[in-house]
Amino acid sequence: MTYLTNDKVAVMGAAGAVGSNLVQALLATGTANTIAMFDPFEEGLEGAAEEIYHCAFPDAHVTWTTDAAGALADAAYVLSSGGAPRREGMTREDLLRGNAEIAAQLGRDIKANAPDARLVVIVFNPADVTGLVTLVHSGLAPQRVTTLAALDSTRLQTRLAQHFGVPQHLVQGCRTYGGHGQEMALYKGATRVDGVPLNDIVNGSALANGVGLTAEDWQEIRQRVLGGGARIIELRGRSSFQSPAHLTAMMVRATCSAEEFDWPCGAYVTGTPYTHVMMAMPTTLGPEGVSWSLPEGDAAEQAELDAAYAHLQHMRDETIEMGLIPPVPEWESANPRLTS
Amino acid sequence: MTYLTNDKVAVMGAAGAVGSNLVQALLATGTANTIAMFDPFEEGLEGAAEEIYHCAFPDAHVTWTTDAAGALADAAYVLSSGGAPRREGMTREDLLRGNAEIAAQLGRDIKANAPDARLVVIVFNPADVTGLVTLVHSGLAPQRVTTLAALDSTRLQTRLAQHFGVPQHLVQGCRTYGGHGQEMALYKGATRVDGVPLNDIVNGSALANGVGLTAEDWQEIRQRVLGGGARIIELRGRSSFQSPAHLTAMMVRATCSAEEFDWPCGAYVTGTPYTHVMMAMPTTLGPEGVSWSLPEGDAAEQAELDAAYAHLQHMRDETIEMGLIPPVPEWESANPRLTS
Repeated sequence: MTYLTNDKVAVMGAAGAVGSNLVQALLATGTANTIAMFDPFEEGLEGAAEEIYHCAFPDAHVTWTTDAAGALADAAYVLSSGGAPRREGMTREDLLRGNAEIAAQLGRDIKANAPDARLVVIVFNPADVTGLVTLVHSGLAPQRVTTLAALDSTRLQTRLAQHFGVPQHLVQGCRTYGGHGQEMALYKGATRVDGVPLNDIVNGSALANGVGLTAEDWQEIRQRVLGGGARIIELRGRSSFQSPAHLTAMMVRATCSAEEFDWPCGAYVTGTPYTHVMMAMPTTLGPEGVSWSLPEGDAAEQAELDAAYAHLQHMRDETIEMGLIPPVPEWESANPRLTS
Repeated sequence: MTYLTNDKVAVMGAAGAVGSNLVQALLATGTANTIAMFDPFEEGLEGAAEEIYHCAFPDAHVTWTTDAAGALADAAYVLSSGGAPRREGMTREDLLRGNAEIAAQLGRDIKANAPDARLVVIVFNPADVTGLVTLVHSGLAPQRVTTLAALDSTRLQTRLAQHFGVPQHLVQGCRTYGGHGQEMALYKGATRVDGVPLNDIVNGSALANGVGLTAEDWQEIRQRVLGGGARIIELRGRSSFQSPAHLTAMMVRATCSAEEFDWPCGAYVTGTPYTHVMMAMPTTLGPEGVSWSLPEGDAAEQAELDAAYAHLQHMRDETIEMGLIPPVPEWESANPRLTS
């Protein structure tokens, strides 16, 4: 068995459901075979590593450690699902502060131990903010730090396939940008269902598989996408872990091969009209990391993205007020690669 | 993306930890893309299916149903982790009875709905008995029904690699036969550590990676293998699920390709000295299913296997007394393919 890369991948939070599945996914998909598993929870980490060993992946070189510096040393890829989950009684701000602190430390640890990392993927929430905080502290070039942002789009694809009764892979070009949850912008322009533009179906000029889509249907689908994560918790009694893990492995794959990752990624955005945030955008992912462009949509879609941006700005500013990242004008001195 | 087979795979118990991971493993490894997920627990099943949909595997055709007959209809592969776990206060006999009943029903359902199945893999415990019960009721040829029996051998490989400080893939030919737990026979004759025969290391005539192995070391390793499953529960707070799922996917892989599955499988054994049981044996797995042979070992190893056989006979006879399979002389009328 060959793997796309033998370079070191550090999986942070590897005792958790996402992290341990991610290690398996990297190996099972033939993406990477040299993996350092890190978690502060030693027993769970050893158990997760033992499960991987018992899989007997050919030519696998998997280690585990509770020392973050050791896990990160000379890693080419850093994948972190190592945030704290929201607990009973915790406010949104508590979660933001706790995970932004973890992200700041991760950024500093990357700067000290993995300054040549080719890709850092942040999976823990709120990912747009934790990704940004990691970037500011890491010293890495902005195209090297991204977030898992594909899950909303794959949920949209899933739901459209169910609505139209077509195989999922016949729904293409699903794109959600901006943030997650209520701060998500659904862009329909690139979406095709069995080859038919979704906008033609929405405006009533076409059907797909003999099925149309009313404004009410679209609102229901939209709500299902926005509530996709909560729905998994309701059904399974636990939050998503297989899909974020698999999609993160696919992001690594696109970075070390010619394979396309056909979903939005988080990108550090500067310029006009959006600047100094990390957000899901039209992106390509390859050996040089993430590159992004502005999306084209109708007025309603652009208004959704503006609202998402405003929300992300607000969370960024909260993080600045908490002292977890410096004010924007000081970012370049914190990370000289954040010019502009 | 291409898959080794487009034939239907029924995954029974797909809402569970093993089953849901198995669906992901079949897709991620490029083994199979047409999968029917069955579980009686509807909410958990829908949640598990949604997670798979959100992975957006290319060209995947995954369905879910709480109707076993529908899931099994014309399946080429049937993989079942759908037993009940041992609960507080349950005796070993309670577990045996409950899971043997599930296996009997599965066998009848296979006979009615998937009479041309090419491979049935039983993963739920006690697998040697549940596999046998499934076979008797299924009407399938004995080479078409097997059990996951590789995990003890991969645990032995893991532990030897740790002892000698060598990469795991440099430990080859690990073989445990018979049953599981205390009823396992560890055969050392084929095992090589970094090319050095394990028996030469054990008898003191060689080292591997500069390391020897005392009789005490071997007993410690043996105990670690026998307690491998319990150790995962102790470390992770839950039983193994990633490794049984991955290895089961690899068994499917070997059946629909030229790829070798280099681990023991459960085989229906008849003849001398062992007969009318299912047990882990030297096996090969391919398009024609499982074929087996008698192992060669030293006197102590053969005595271990004899003890394992006696235990498996005893559990088989308990199952007969419970009325879950007919007495041995009536097996051929229950399943005409069980001649001998």
